[in-house]
Amino acid sequence: MHILITGGAGFLGAKLARQLLARGKLIDSSGQPKAISNITLFDRVAAQGFNDARVTIRVGDVADFETMQRVLTPEVQSVFHLAAIVSGEAESDFDLGMRINFDATRQLLEIARSNGNCPRIVFASSVAVFGGDLPLQVLDSTAVTPVGSYGAQKAMAELLITDFSRKGFIDGRAIRVPTVSVRPGLPNKAASSFASGIIREPLNRMPAICPVAPDTRVWLTSPRSALFNLVHAHEIDGQLLGPSRALNLPGLATTVQEMVNALGRVAGEQTVSYIRWQEDLAISRLIRSWPGNFLSTRADALGFVRDQNFDDVVRAYMDEEMTSTV
Amino acid sequence: MHILITGGAGFLGAKLARQLLARGKLIDSSGQPKAISNITLFDRVAAQGFNDARVTIRVGDVADFETMQRVLTPEVQSVFHLAAIVSGEAESDFDLGMRINFDATRQLLEIARSNGNCPRIVFASSVAVFGGDLPLQVLDSTAVTPVGSYGAQKAMAELLITDFSRKGFIDGRAIRVPTVSVRPGLPNKAASSFASGIIREPLNRMPAICPVAPDTRVWLTSPRSALFNLVHAHEIDGQLLGPSRALNLPGLATTVQEMVNALGRVAGEQTVSYIRWQEDLAISRLIRSWPGNFLSTRADALGFVRDQNFDDVVRAYMDEEMTSTV
Repeated sequence: MHILITGGAGFLGAKLARQLLARGKLIDSSGQPKAISNITLFDRVAAQGFNDARVTIRVGDVADFETMQRVLTPEVQSVFHLAAIVSGEAESDFDLGMRINFDATRQLLEIARSNGNCPRIVFASSVAVFGGDLPLQVLDSTAVTPVGSYGAQKAMAELLITDFSRKGFIDGRAIRVPTVSVRPGLPNKAASSFASGIIREPLNRMPAICPVAPDTRVWLTSPRSALFNLVHAHEIDGQLLGPSRALNLPGLATTVQEMVNALGRVAGEQTVSYIRWQEDLAISRLIRSWPGNFLSTRADALGFVRDQNFDDVVRAYMDEEMTSTV
Repeated sequence: MHILITGGAGFLGAKLARQLLARGKLIDSSGQPKAISNITLFDRVAAQGFNDARVTIRVGDVADFETMQRVLTPEVQSVFHLAAIVSGEAESDFDLGMRINFDATRQLLEIARSNGNCPRIVFASSVAVFGGDLPLQVLDSTAVTPVGSYGAQKAMAELLITDFSRKGFIDGRAIRVPTVSVRPGLPNKAASSFASGIIREPLNRMPAICPVAPDTRVWLTSPRSALFNLVHAHEIDGQLLGPSRALNLPGLATTVQEMVNALGRVAGEQTVSYIRWQEDLAISRLIRSWPGNFLSTRADALGFVRDQNFDDVVRAYMDEEMTSTV
């Protein structure tokens, strides 16, 4: 079984690859687990730290047609399409966001279609497809109303994935991933970057700026739950998704203040003093437009998972990502 | 004031042009009525029957960049973008639908953006953006879930129009036009073509085939209401639309049987005998996936109109379109 992961040098892509290598198998369209023979990690920089004969590292532009034709060959039965321009950058550079988040996705779908093998394609969409005047809990039937270019581009790609799947060109699954926290590594240009930074930096005795108010509501997933859900999205029967291949994932509904409280409980109150509250209106506007709570009925019924509390998420970050605990 | 109408040789486009010429004025971004100095009617065939110095007839491919750059110049402050591949054809020729319904729309928006004058753009979207498992009444907050390529392409274009408007590139309005009945002229490749044919053909003593069951629910607009709403969509302040520039229009909720009953009442029972009921599963599937009823709260509050009963719609067709009444 050949698998392609775009954004394969990124944090989630690399973790996903490690998990797949460790599992060794993945359920395909036969409904049976198949041995994973090849994983191609594609990204604009080379994925690091892989030493496994099953892994191929490829570097290039995900929006370049010839490059992607060489990467997404008819042998590839499974694609995890994670490559994206994050929310903050898609907002400041509209054309770059269109090119990567929409055009490159469309092109990938077209290559898959021309390959004629109806691959399973898991697309990392986002809660940012929702915005504006929202109910207290977003339902599966709630209209998509993005108020940022990132969300608009993801929503357009979702529509394509549903229609390509309906036509039998691909077997797609577009999962709306909640804000991932705690991400390891460095801050990025996502508006939601702070949601990891305010936990990660204090745990590493570094200062962190929180650009949103403490009462800001967020819908979170730990990396562990996000990874489980990415793999699960691949393994379920796509027909179970019904007419729309887009799916609101389960998450943890909390506030930024509650996240900081959890940090204090788990790592000690002195840790919290590394956080400086300094509102950034551009970030705050985007974050507040995203929903803070969902009733994820469809995804719950399909076996997707959520985190139960943020204290455990902080502990998991410390266990998995820190060489020495605080 | 310069106006561009794409699909200007089509039934709605040509009627819209005549109405605008008769009015002579249109409210623009100043909030004041401005004299209409130029109307460009663009289509793949030449619009016929115009003899007015204000009208320019242009013929070409709406998806061709250089053509559209010559048509949508910085002098154009208003665009009615009606050109489309209809539902049945977009379903049977996926690539043609993408090219015209999505790519050409995107290109038009990009040209408008580069013109730098933030034109008002009225986009004819469709109730076909909805499908699948729908509530009995579609609300303004109901999720868009197209189950046809036409609806998917329109929904993607709506998202672009909203985002281009939010960014200040254009001032767009995407109105989801109900099924238009009674259209004059010949049948077309729209799945909904029958909704005019079963009235028009019998009135002209011609046989008509109805490809859907009598209890099929439909959401209708007369040409007259559709034209009022197109002009109204241009004249309202775009900010009133809120975060999404897409709008469910008011319509008349009825069934195909009730339409036929109205025909019999207005034109005589013998007229009904011209209709032959012969279900076409491809058409029926698409039509049944579309919603038959809406609660169009936003549009009602903004002053968009609906027809009160189908008997009047049949009478209006006879008055306006038939040289001799039956």
